[in-house]
Amino acid sequence: MAGVDAAGEFETIRKLFAPLAHPDHAWGLRDDVAVMPTRPGYDLVLTKDAIVEGVHFLPDDPLDTVAQKLLRVNLSDLAAKGCEPFGYLLACHWSPRCGWPEREAFAEGLAADQKEFGIHLLGGDTVLTPGPASFSATMMGWAPKTGSVTRGGAKPGHGVYVTGTIGDGYLGLKAAQGHLKLEEERLEALAEHYRRPVPRLAYGQAVQGYATAIMDVSDGLIADLAHIADASGVAASVQLELLPKSAAAMAWFETRIDPEAALEQLATGGDDYELLFTAHPADEGNLKREADRLLLRLTRVGTVEAGRGVSATHLGKPVDIRKPGWTHD
Amino acid sequence: MAGVDAAGEFETIRKLFAPLAHPDHAWGLRDDVAVMPTRPGYDLVLTKDAIVEGVHFLPDDPLDTVAQKLLRVNLSDLAAKGCEPFGYLLACHWSPRCGWPEREAFAEGLAADQKEFGIHLLGGDTVLTPGPASFSATMMGWAPKTGSVTRGGAKPGHGVYVTGTIGDGYLGLKAAQGHLKLEEERLEALAEHYRRPVPRLAYGQAVQGYATAIMDVSDGLIADLAHIADASGVAASVQLELLPKSAAAMAWFETRIDPEAALEQLATGGDDYELLFTAHPADEGNLKREADRLLLRLTRVGTVEAGRGVSATHLGKPVDIRKPGWTHD
Repeated sequence: MAGVDAAGEFETIRKLFAPLAHPDHAWGLRDDVAVMPTRPGYDLVLTKDAIVEGVHFLPDDPLDTVAQKLLRVNLSDLAAKGCEPFGYLLACHWSPRCGWPEREAFAEGLAADQKEFGIHLLGGDTVLTPGPASFSATMMGWAPKTGSVTRGGAKPGHGVYVTGTIGDGYLGLKAAQGHLKLEEERLEALAEHYRRPVPRLAYGQAVQGYATAIMDVSDGLIADLAHIADASGVAASVQLELLPKSAAAMAWFETRIDPEAALEQLATGGDDYELLFTAHPADEGNLKREADRLLLRLTRVGTVEAGRGVSATHLGKPVDIRKPGWTHD
Repeated sequence: MAGVDAAGEFETIRKLFAPLAHPDHAWGLRDDVAVMPTRPGYDLVLTKDAIVEGVHFLPDDPLDTVAQKLLRVNLSDLAAKGCEPFGYLLACHWSPRCGWPEREAFAEGLAADQKEFGIHLLGGDTVLTPGPASFSATMMGWAPKTGSVTRGGAKPGHGVYVTGTIGDGYLGLKAAQGHLKLEEERLEALAEHYRRPVPRLAYGQAVQGYATAIMDVSDGLIADLAHIADASGVAASVQLELLPKSAAAMAWFETRIDPEAALEQLATGGDDYELLFTAHPADEGNLKREADRLLLRLTRVGTVEAGRGVSATHLGKPVDIRKPGWTHD
């Protein structure tokens, strides 16, 4: 049923992926399996995320950034667990647009991020699909055996914090689609954030001693905070005027007639890949110090309360959030 | 960009997949990660295979058997390493045909095989694609720390062995497509083999002490034997008249005018998921005894020789194999 693939599974693996393989644990990708090491005092943590062309990345996104986005959305999950990343298995569902130059670009993106994040390829599969391209990675990392923070420990009175800025992924998608009118430099900064989010690995490790509940923001700040509230059996409120905005997001925000609606878009747009966590207010000094050390912005955007669900206010006025987050599926 | 998904990612995970989650290591799928245990004296072995509708399974295959095929092709890789299976992460790239009843069927297929093979779901992702459905699994298992047999130990004089029968996957595909004229019962047996191959896990463990090189047959007997020959730096020859055939394959074979061409089809068709290995002839008695114990057919189909590549003969006459195996990609 499969057509003959000009780029070739074995060629792709041998020429493009084998050089990316872990020197000790992937047998040069000449076998079907990888054998994992153990690390005394550490747990092996796994996560698996998939991305689909036209859903999670754009049909004209360069394949090197698609590869990087794939790794980074998975690394972002490990960041929330305070993991040190180790390696990954990869499944490439190539579409007809993925010829040899595109596969080379994909492998270059992987290589760049392997260097950036200290990870290696451990195995996987490459198949052809007539439909849009899609990719998945199973990312592995090490977490101290003392245990990672879950989503379930938020208590009334704790603060709600986010790293970096919120809304750039959402605006970046619009910028990459040509739906945004801003200076070229702003558009590029936003599209770059959409295509290559930055997993907050170092800060994820730093906050494990302080956070009471943590996850990364992929579906949207409000939707993901709802997951924490749900798992913790609490409510949470967000002050929309406190949302940390990048210079580019600020430039966009200033063009908006309805600031409340604009903030709602940023808080629900998704694709941020920042860390969202709750912590006791007494730890705020330590949290800020760790963020300063990493030159990372940290913002308290809300408060954990008794009850259920997530509410939002703008300058003290309740805001009705109709669609709390992006629905990927 | 994604349309609203009626079946719903969260609904799918909560209602269909959470009941399949490992009781200790998947946190009820309420988090993005799984934490793996360690097992003293054992290595954790990983493999990741993907399957695509229209390439590895048929657009009208029931989703429960698609789920089972996904798990089994991955388990088959672990079988070749003598692993005891433990669990898996899953990525579902649902197409529009995958509504709620189809997802329910998929989860039922997973549940049946979890029971059959003693495995649990550990995590993963579910996304929507407008294209054909595709799925991948990262399967994990335990192998004794003494190390698994690789593909690289075949030496001239060793025998070439296969478990079960060869060609049923190939004929099963034709049967499922309605391209085969045989009794209904035969067609069903063949289609069943195509849809639900049987990973040879117990025998894979039993032969680790004897096999000098081993892998599972997915691309076709000849193509996969070429991988072993290549990795071992040897040649191998196959006597096509020795190919073990099921009763259904035999019935098909008897309708063929050109027996040599028919055997070539069986030896190159792929999708067998039997174990293919080499061993010293002195171990043949032990290999047979282990196979008998498991009520499994074991056949010596050829010999390892000095040189490079794989050759085939039929009743002593050389056969020119034009296309050694199925190209999935």
